[in-house]
Amino acid sequence: MSNKFQQVNDFSMGRLTSLLVLLHNTELAEGIEKEINERGYSYTVGKVGAMELSKVVAAIETSAKTNKIINAQSYREVHALYHAILEAIQGVSRGTLQLGDILRTVGLTFSIVRGKIEFSGSSDEWISVCVYGTIGAPKKGFEHDTLGFGFNHI
Amino acid sequence: MSNKFQQVNDFSMGRLTSLLVLLHNTELAEGIEKEINERGYSYTVGKVGAMELSKVVAAIETSAKTNKIINAQSYREVHALYHAILEAIQGVSRGTLQLGDILRTVGLTFSIVRGKIEFSGSSDEWISVCVYGTIGAPKKGFEHDTLGFGFNHI
Amino acid sequence: MSNKFQQVNDFSMGRLTSLLVLLHNTELAEGIEKEINERGYSYTVGKVGAMELSKVVAAIETSAKTNKIINAQSYREVHALYHAILEAIQGVSRGTLQLGDILRTVGLTFSIVRGKIEFSGSSDEWISVCVYGTIGAPKKGFEHDTLGFGFNHI
Amino acid sequence: MSNKFQQVNDFSMGRLTSLLVLLHNTELAEGIEKEINERGYSYTVGKVGAMELSKVVAAIETSAKTNKIINAQSYREVHALYHAILEAIQGVSRGTLQLGDILRTVGLTFSIVRGKIEFSGSSDEWISVCVYGTIGAPKKGFEHDTLGFGFNHI
Amino acid sequence: MSNKFQQVNDFSMGRLTSLLVLLHNTELAEGIEKEINERGYSYTVGKVGAMELSKVVAAIETSAKTNKIINAQSYREVHALYHAILEAIQGVSRGTLQLGDILRTVGLTFSIVRGKIEFSGSSDEWISVCVYGTIGAPKKGFEHDTLGFGFNHI
Amino acid sequence: MSNKFQQVNDFSMGRLTSLLVLLHNTELAEGIEKEINERGYSYTVGKVGAMELSKVVAAIETSAKTNKIINAQSYREVHALYHAILEAIQGVSRGTLQLGDILRTVGLTFSIVRGKIEFSGSSDEWISVCVYGTIGAPKKGFEHDTLGFGFNHI
Ligand SMILES: [Mg+2]
Ligand SMILES: [Mg+2]
Ligand SMILES: [Mg+2]
Ligand SMILES: [Mg+2]
Ligand SMILES: [Mg+2]
Ligand SMILES: [Mg+2]
Repeated sequence: MSNKFQQVNDFSMGRLTSLLVLLHNTELAEGIEKEINERGYSYTVGKVGAMELSKVVAAIETSAKTNKIINAQSYREVHALYHAILEAIQGVSRGTLQLGDILRTVGLTFSIVRGKIEFSGSSDEWISVCVYGTIGAPKKGFEHDTLGFGFNHI
Repeated sequence: MSNKFQQVNDFSMGRLTSLLVLLHNTELAEGIEKEINERGYSYTVGKVGAMELSKVVAAIETSAKTNKIINAQSYREVHALYHAILEAIQGVSRGTLQLGDILRTVGLTFSIVRGKIEFSGSSDEWISVCVYGTIGAPKKGFEHDTLGFGFNHI
Repeated sequence: MSNKFQQVNDFSMGRLTSLLVLLHNTELAEGIEKEINERGYSYTVGKVGAMELSKVVAAIETSAKTNKIINAQSYREVHALYHAILEAIQGVSRGTLQLGDILRTVGLTFSIVRGKIEFSGSSDEWISVCVYGTIGAPKKGFEHDTLGFGFNHI
Repeated sequence: MSNKFQQVNDFSMGRLTSLLVLLHNTELAEGIEKEINERGYSYTVGKVGAMELSKVVAAIETSAKTNKIINAQSYREVHALYHAILEAIQGVSRGTLQLGDILRTVGLTFSIVRGKIEFSGSSDEWISVCVYGTIGAPKKGFEHDTLGFGFNHI
Repeated sequence: MSNKFQQVNDFSMGRLTSLLVLLHNTELAEGIEKEINERGYSYTVGKVGAMELSKVVAAIETSAKTNKIINAQSYREVHALYHAILEAIQGVSRGTLQLGDILRTVGLTFSIVRGKIEFSGSSDEWISVCVYGTIGAPKKGFEHDTLGFGFNHI
Repeated sequence: MSNKFQQVNDFSMGRLTSLLVLLHNTELAEGIEKEINERGYSYTVGKVGAMELSKVVAAIETSAKTNKIINAQSYREVHALYHAILEAIQGVSRGTLQLGDILRTVGLTFSIVRGKIEFSGSSDEWISVCVYGTIGAPKKGFEHDTLGFGFNHI
């Protein structure tokens, strides 16, 4: 199975990050993770449900630190991740970075991947964040899919 | 292969829309398309590269009309799609709906899926748009991944 | 009196929605309501004062449900109304969907109208929301007029 | 007729500005204009259709200057009007100040009113702008109502 | 020393406002203040640290009132200052007027200057606000510089 | 003179960047530049006037490349600078990244500084951009001061 992603090894890091969260908890996730591992990327997947946006930001940041995707002692790395998270949340919230303030809540799964990418001949580290889940009224079933993606050099 | 998505038939329409574009041109796409077809959803996948945002909007709209995802004669359907496209573009552009104005360009693949979804007991039609590709400077290799998603009732 | 609006029966639903709130509590309101009723539209008018935006959203939503403008059990209808409310609030807050966060408060009257509109030959249901009132510092007399309008298919 | 607005002489300047544009070209407009005149406010009403936002801004500005609502030689007055126009356009465009860039066009009627208002005991000049019309695809009938309002001290 | 700013008496009020905050607590501040005084401008400098944006707005407003930069009883003046503050905060927060909601905090020094400026032959009063400091995670050392500027007629 | 900035050698890189542009073409600039040089930072100052935002972005980018502040062949560095520029422009345009689209133009001086900063014990490279000038109507004298600042790790 995993060779499906191996053979398509022109998959960008961002694409793998997105598939990692979208295929989370399915048997296809294994192939994605295998490919990510073989490239030497570090990654993690987590979940957060909240009506306060600060909790979403905190959950993703904490997960990245706890799982050693970034060095929690380095402001540089925290800064890189922070802006990638904000970008991802802009896709989730589309137009205004707000949840409870405009009476909506989210249930999200997120993935964070970090690794070296070769851009125009030089190889540097980048970080990508993908967030997928539901957004909607604070009432079961009154919500729809949402997806966001952020990318930054680190 | 396709049964991978069949078995996970709790995949939401938005998730299938996103996977459709992220797995486009890989052999996994077949499984997604099979699942989409079996549910009776209509869908299309297209591409657009532009430095003018209006061309991106136009390409997605035209593709939806040409491929009969929406009825081009119905303002209601055009309106539903239009707002879904704007939502997707907000994820792509993160913060400001601009491309060439701020000196960046995109190369995008998009998917549009329409179908009946059962929310809280009633079954209605919704439309989702996912846009995946690269955004960056108008110079080959000076761009990174981008992803956006929009969802609306139709 | 009411025939003033009758004779101008090319008034759009959005125009009637806006006049309904702007002429609320004047004798001209009667003519607007008569025209709205004759067209078979459903409508309601309500008030909300708040320093928290979530309360404004909630008040409009609750009013629409309580007065049977939308079916509270249908996510589709809740979704349509929700986005119309957000659009209206964007006019009220001009640039950033915030009240108390940036130290301002509102005292608003809102109208919600729903009905069939004929666009390019087909007749479908749409919903419009108009919000009118004052916005300003949390101090009597230190506020000015504000107006917002949202429109969506339902 | 006009006494309808006279008797409700607690109508704010912003409310009159909004009614002026919403009742434009109906026989009720006369009453609004009479009330505006009796208060010694200056006002004008104009129209603009465009796919370029700069043309909308220019049309409103030019109308205010030509009709002596503001002194075209005073930067202070131009500045006050400019920000009121931007506020009004935010209601029209809801979220992003763009027309053709996101493939939409407008057909608008606007009103500009300037006059002395008594706020908390002191009487100063303010200016308000209301814009009403349609926004939508560049195709006849594929558009819906839109409304925006701006207010500033001058 | 002060003549350094005197000789460059083509320094705009906005430039002096910005230098006032950027040179605060250095010996160069004296020269700026001397020039501001000689022109008959009124000014103040203050500090605020907060994770809630409303506290930042309140601190600047209160400082302007307490130090008689504006007349707290005049809504017109409060309105002019308020919009200048919002503009300055947009520079500080870049893209979204939020602090704690997106898990960040600020430590700011602000300056407010008010005075007569001659624009195109007429001399009127304007107000400018400059905010300088740090923004970042709620953790010492995990923050970077930020700067914002607002300007309005008063 | 220069020792004024030397003695205040706790000036952050962002503060020096801002002073560099605000004191440009005055004799005080020398002190700033001396301090910047002694720290081993690289920097440049340039000018751009435009009604198209893309020209502003291009001018700053080109200046950074031409003056070797960033390596034009490294996408990583171009990316870091690009986001710093966008942040700075948000301060300049306050709320919407638009110039000619909303009928305004700018005349700007910008500074770019790059260097090692010690944050929480580790020393890494960061880049800051400050933009100062005028924004307003396309008519001489009908414009006011504007200022923006961006900061990023590189
Ligand atoms: Mg980027
Ligand atoms: Mg929605
Ligand atoms: Mg619409
Ligand atoms: Mg205001
Ligand atoms: Mg201005
Ligand atoms: Mg930052």
